Amino acid sequence: MKAAINRHRADMTRSLGGLLFRGVHSLTSIPAVRTQLGHLASGGAVRTVMTLPSFLSPKPRDFSLPNSSWGSEMLRLHEHYNSQCEGEMEEGEEGRGLWLRLPSYNRSLKYATGGVYLSKMVQANARLFTRNSREQGAGFEYVVFVNKKENKCVCIFQAGHLLEGPPGCVHGGAIATMIDTVTGTHANVLSRPVMTANLNINYRSPIPLGNTVLIESSLDSREGRKMFISCKVTSTDGSKLHTEATALFLSVNFSHLLKGG
Amino acid sequence: MKAAINRHRADMTRSLGGLLFRGVHSLTSIPAVRTQLGHLASGGAVRTVMTLPSFLSPKPRDFSLPNSSWGSEMLRLHEHYNSQCEGEMEEGEEGRGLWLRLPSYNRSLKYATGGVYLSKMVQANARLFTRNSREQGAGFEYVVFVNKKENKCVCIFQAGHLLEGPPGCVHGGAIATMIDTVTGTHANVLSRPVMTANLNINYRSPIPLGNTVLIESSLDSREGRKMFISCKVTSTDGSKLHTEATALFLSVNFSHLLKGG
Repeated sequence: MKAAINRHRADMTRSLGGLLFRGVHSLTSIPAVRTQLGHLASGGAVRTVMTLPSFLSPKPRDFSLPNSSWGSEMLRLHEHYNSQCEGEMEEGEEGRGLWLRLPSYNRSLKYATGGVYLSKMVQANARLFTRNSREQGAGFEYVVFVNKKENKCVCIFQAGHLLEGPPGCVHGGAIATMIDTVTGTHANVLSRPVMTANLNINYRSPIPLGNTVLIESSLDSREGRKMFISCKVTSTDGSKLHTEATALFLSVNFSHLLKGG
Repeated sequence: MKAAINRHRADMTRSLGGLLFRGVHSLTSIPAVRTQLGHLASGGAVRTVMTLPSFLSPKPRDFSLPNSSWGSEMLRLHEHYNSQCEGEMEEGEEGRGLWLRLPSYNRSLKYATGGVYLSKMVQANARLFTRNSREQGAGFEYVVFVNKKENKCVCIFQAGHLLEGPPGCVHGGAIATMIDTVTGTHANVLSRPVMTANLNINYRSPIPLGNTVLIESSLDSREGRKMFISCKVTSTDGSKLHTEATALFLSVNFSHLLKGG
């Protein structure tokens, strides 16, 4: 389960928990794999989900690992946090290291039945918004680490040239996307699946394209299904505040998402 | 100036006003075009900006025009609003039609001197976040119409398969991006250049990938440099509320943006 758990943890701002997901391309085109029964660990519902036989299941690319587009600051910070990790943990296991690096993939899962209607083209080609670029370094380059003991996450984010808003600077929507991603990942670690209910973002100073910044989230409080998380985006030395935000996430039932509302 | 004005109006969530912009590819690789002096109409500052001689200046693609990826709902709504336009207007001219369609390009402008340091690679290849996909229909397909008399904008938005967040649904960050884009375009029509100061977004129900939705913005109030704009995202018949938001924009000096803070 280790791989499935870690894939699940990563990146899913609002995810369906515990589903098996193997392979990243066009599973819908292979009828033979459509009928394996999967069990939704968190929600307890039984749904038909798709998995591939292991011989057809290449290990998907983990986008949170360093690549040649990462600049020196991105690499330095990755090493800083990575050196404080002690390998990936099984779910429920207490952390031996201070931080846990969260793997990140470009698909969440596919489901064969129920939910909203999507054309086959859309379903087959859908990619996670923050991992949809084929060109390394062009879009969102980031890695998220979680610290369960201190209830916080940190994300190292290098902004590529396809994220432009104001001339030479990162688009406010791209910043919002990363805030949603980091706080949503944080909420997901605490209780999944979750949905973003509110994002309240204050933009303080622009982020130049190409820069690496830190995004830190911390849990403010929990009230029943609600998780209140705050977040700030700063320069890597912490001296400049670019953006700060609060986020509210709700634990949801699977049926809520699959019914599209 | 008509083309330059209309390019400027479109898409620039937070833009530099009145700059000449011609050509969409790698102007920095052509030394001869680096020294033409441009004048920033709104800010009054004189800066060195790049323009191409007209014979080297192909008309950039207007992304707000229909393409083969647009579905029937997108086309129907485009025709609905477009039929109420009466051509593009010169700046300052009173509208003869109820609506004005805003053209949309994938670069804002390039500036050769001043401002934050960007590597040549980043500067040459930078693309507007919402127009960075080479594949029609894969990312953000949208067109914005403005109604100056009633102080509102409407955007028709078709969400492509590269915008996935929750399985089969649009990423919260992609929705935030479109809200920033529409409200920012609205603020820009009222007073430019502007910067996003705050976005407060309530997510009510998911948007399935591939769907077309309406995004409507209206000006709530103006106080000095501040513009308060509200926004909602609904199904195209208005019966389902997906997202609602408020946004605060500030009129800024060019120097603020160019100094990166």
